[in-house]
Amino acid sequence: MSRVLTGDRPSGPLHLGHYVGSLLKRLELQNQYEQLIMVADLQALTDNYDQKEKVSSAIIEVLADYIAVGLNPEKNIIFIQSQIPELTELTFYFMNLVTLARVQRNPTLKAERQQKGYEETIPLGFLCYPISQAADITAFEANLVPVGEDQLPMIEQANEIVRKFNSIYKENTLKESKALVGSVGRLVGIDGKAKASKSLNNAIYLSDTAEEVKRKVFLMYTDPNHLKLEDPGQVAGNVVFDYLEAFHPNKEELEELKNHYQRGGLGDVTLKNLLYKSLEELLEPIRERRSQIKSKDLLELAHEGSKKARKIAQNTLEKVREAMGLII
Amino acid sequence: MSRVLTGDRPSGPLHLGHYVGSLLKRLELQNQYEQLIMVADLQALTDNYDQKEKVSSAIIEVLADYIAVGLNPEKNIIFIQSQIPELTELTFYFMNLVTLARVQRNPTLKAERQQKGYEETIPLGFLCYPISQAADITAFEANLVPVGEDQLPMIEQANEIVRKFNSIYKENTLKESKALVGSVGRLVGIDGKAKASKSLNNAIYLSDTAEEVKRKVFLMYTDPNHLKLEDPGQVAGNVVFDYLEAFHPNKEELEELKNHYQRGGLGDVTLKNLLYKSLEELLEPIRERRSQIKSKDLLELAHEGSKKARKIAQNTLEKVREAMGLII
Repeated sequence: MSRVLTGDRPSGPLHLGHYVGSLLKRLELQNQYEQLIMVADLQALTDNYDQKEKVSSAIIEVLADYIAVGLNPEKNIIFIQSQIPELTELTFYFMNLVTLARVQRNPTLKAERQQKGYEETIPLGFLCYPISQAADITAFEANLVPVGEDQLPMIEQANEIVRKFNSIYKENTLKESKALVGSVGRLVGIDGKAKASKSLNNAIYLSDTAEEVKRKVFLMYTDPNHLKLEDPGQVAGNVVFDYLEAFHPNKEELEELKNHYQRGGLGDVTLKNLLYKSLEELLEPIRERRSQIKSKDLLELAHEGSKKARKIAQNTLEKVREAMGLII
Repeated sequence: MSRVLTGDRPSGPLHLGHYVGSLLKRLELQNQYEQLIMVADLQALTDNYDQKEKVSSAIIEVLADYIAVGLNPEKNIIFIQSQIPELTELTFYFMNLVTLARVQRNPTLKAERQQKGYEETIPLGFLCYPISQAADITAFEANLVPVGEDQLPMIEQANEIVRKFNSIYKENTLKESKALVGSVGRLVGIDGKAKASKSLNNAIYLSDTAEEVKRKVFLMYTDPNHLKLEDPGQVAGNVVFDYLEAFHPNKEELEELKNHYQRGGLGDVTLKNLLYKSLEELLEPIRERRSQIKSKDLLELAHEGSKKARKIAQNTLEKVREAMGLII
């Protein structure tokens, strides 16, 4: 059976952007494949190394989000990256196989480096995180890695390392993986900004109360020229319609709403109430499931999952050490 | 009691240069301190990643050299770096605390990088080996690290990391170390080249037979203008005198020899026979001890030593993980 590796950097609770961008896909994948879901705390530390509290509390939030959303710990291996030290060991070995020039050419890293304003002051941990990701994928022998288009260079780099390792140390030791590029849903922030994030405070969290959801929906940007009810309104660039597109359950009805809005006569308040209703249809069961989760149980399932994940990684590392002649 | 960490990259058998440069010092230190001696195979792989056979066979050679030379496995913890995966884990964490700019400024790394002709094609493992060294020193809580002057920046960098770690994660978690800068003996190659090395085939190995030693001594460069016995000869730049300086047991006699050579009347053959005799006084007991060593015993002592070393590192890593909030 094919094995999928996926996960999140714990840097805050998950929001609707994560839901359409990856969680929805995972809910589907959990019924088709063996799915490993990693809370990538070590990766989160590469650009949050001085914010350990933020990372540790986000671990629990993310775990709760997983369960609340319907990811089943019986069907998936849900685990914490830092509990698998073999991943750091494999990263160390892989670092010999990648030059400074090569990693600096990685387009994903390049874009993030620029965005964060790192030039030569980039921490080595962050510089090497593509190598660490390659180690994650390889250690778990994942064949499939769900990614967005922008993450494709990471899979390429991982496979390059795998080929180099096998050719230098021992053929067929490590396995290449495939990117599972889906039509990844994207969701703007409630302020219309491209990225929803905690620091911009423009995201609707899976853990928000109904009141918070309502408040955020009513804060959403619409068409600034749609002043009177009877004015024709714009759908493009209208955040409420972006969200309706993602969450309204009935496509036909949504088309009718768009037409009505563009003709004029459909008010923002009506529209926002509709969106709120759609969101609550999704969020209420999530909230219900969350209310039944105990922190203790989350930690226990993370322990259990990490134990299982570690076994797989240990098995790979044994092969790796043998291939490299590190067994004395 | 103070703890010393020292060791070698296994890239070939040890030679007389190692003897005067470090082994002699270790023979002294083993009676004063708790001494950890690391066969740094992972470090050797950072610039020999595609020569695993060379590294694995050198591990055994180096272990045999240690015992043959008189390093006592009861008094020292002799171990193999790759058997302590905690070192790779700590390296991973430390990499977040050092920027690309900072490691590239490390003068020791800079010099080696230039010497090896690495520019941007430097492997990340080699680029980060100062971080890995910092992890070695720190994981074993070594207070003292015997180094040559040129290695001082490594200790500085390690202590910088320790301070940063403690201030970010938890005060007093890790300990700083001190360089033990001795008057490190240096020895030229038998061809007069500054560095004795396997590839130049200009070294006398601790494992050479008496015949090999004699042959190499008689190949040594002397004073090229010292053609006839009665000619005055030059001492400076004369390899035989460099070696006599290091290995002749009687300083007074050596002074007399120098004077005689400079006056004329002392032949190179007489001098070389004398050097050969001095070397054999050192090497014969080493050879004798080596003849009693079984490979099996070497592996066993490395296993035992690695187990002890690993315990120390595991203890440190537990503190590290706790400080970083990585225990869930």
